[in-house]
Amino acid sequence: MSARVAVLASGSGSNLQALIDDCAQPDAPARIALVISNRREAFALERARLAAIPAQHLPRSRQESRQDYDARLVEALQAQQIDWVCLAGWMLLVTPVFLRAFPSRVLNVHPALLPSFPGLDGAAQALAHGARVTGATVHLVDEGCDTGPILCQGAVPVLPDDDLARLQARIHRVEHRLYPRALRLVLQGQPRVQGRVVYFDGQPQARTYEWFEG
Amino acid sequence: MSARVAVLASGSGSNLQALIDDCAQPDAPARIALVISNRREAFALERARLAAIPAQHLPRSRQESRQDYDARLVEALQAQQIDWVCLAGWMLLVTPVFLRAFPSRVLNVHPALLPSFPGLDGAAQALAHGARVTGATVHLVDEGCDTGPILCQGAVPVLPDDDLARLQARIHRVEHRLYPRALRLVLQGQPRVQGRVVYFDGQPQARTYEWFEG
Repeated sequence: MSARVAVLASGSGSNLQALIDDCAQPDAPARIALVISNRREAFALERARLAAIPAQHLPRSRQESRQDYDARLVEALQAQQIDWVCLAGWMLLVTPVFLRAFPSRVLNVHPALLPSFPGLDGAAQALAHGARVTGATVHLVDEGCDTGPILCQGAVPVLPDDDLARLQARIHRVEHRLYPRALRLVLQGQPRVQGRVVYFDGQPQARTYEWFEG
Repeated sequence: MSARVAVLASGSGSNLQALIDDCAQPDAPARIALVISNRREAFALERARLAAIPAQHLPRSRQESRQDYDARLVEALQAQQIDWVCLAGWMLLVTPVFLRAFPSRVLNVHPALLPSFPGLDGAAQALAHGARVTGATVHLVDEGCDTGPILCQGAVPVLPDDDLARLQARIHRVEHRLYPRALRLVLQGQPRVQGRVVYFDGQPQARTYEWFEG
């Protein structure tokens, strides 16, 4: 039986689209069973509707604590029997309330080669730092900010005439390759975390890296 | 006229060898004019002798301050009219005494994609962190530890069955490609540092990155 995956997205949802497309493959081990956005106008919700996936707008009210919001989020996810959660441009920090409900079952994608450039605007940080190589990381989410165990990383060059938009576009393209692969790996590879290192006992030779110059 | 470059090495000098080999090319803009090691038994000194390059053993005595040692080092370099200095496995931290004598003219190679994994044992840090991509960085040296402006970076995958020796060997191979290229760039590319970013005004399309899977 396919795993039931929810995607949480605040923005355009291009990573959501990559996950939807991969889960449409006949051999996919997952189906995207729910998409939630905190922003009504997020194009991610429209992408879900176009793919006939249940889509919910779940705004956080101003007076609501992060914990209270996450409790409502967990309720919405559990109502749909969600097994795994993929954050895809989710602009809210998740709390222990959320992580305890999905222990080691929350993935995130970050636009840098962690541990370099955590936090906001990973691509802009890499440009300002003068990095010559940057990339993207899919990792398990823990209570830190972009600190969880790494599943896959993809590297891209920073080119001499890059501006932020060009670099971001290149990083997005490598994210779109990595995220579906990382999701397949956690579903099929029997992940085991030892220290900070994730081993895939079911697929010990799994390819967990990517180079993308295009 | 070729720039006169000194290489400071504490160990086997494999990066020194890469620089010697590149500087033997007819179009090389530099010659290695001096090799200094703080360790008498460093194979780097033997490599220099084999290439007919002046080699000096300059030990730091126990009671000598880092500043006093660096003053002697500067004297030895200036006696040979050295223009640029490449650190290649140099295990001593350099002081402002040294950097002031060669402002923005000291290069270092580090076995990680900085700013990830600065300091000692970059490869071991990457393994322990569970990184899927790591690499090497050639940078200008400033007073921090591996914090100076980046010239070139090369990325390598961390493979599932890597042990430290295998990963270190892969990183060394990408270092040997990067370091000669970085040296040519600073000599021929009219480097200009703005903020933390190094521009090569003379070679604005210079390739400053590498991917190496071998």
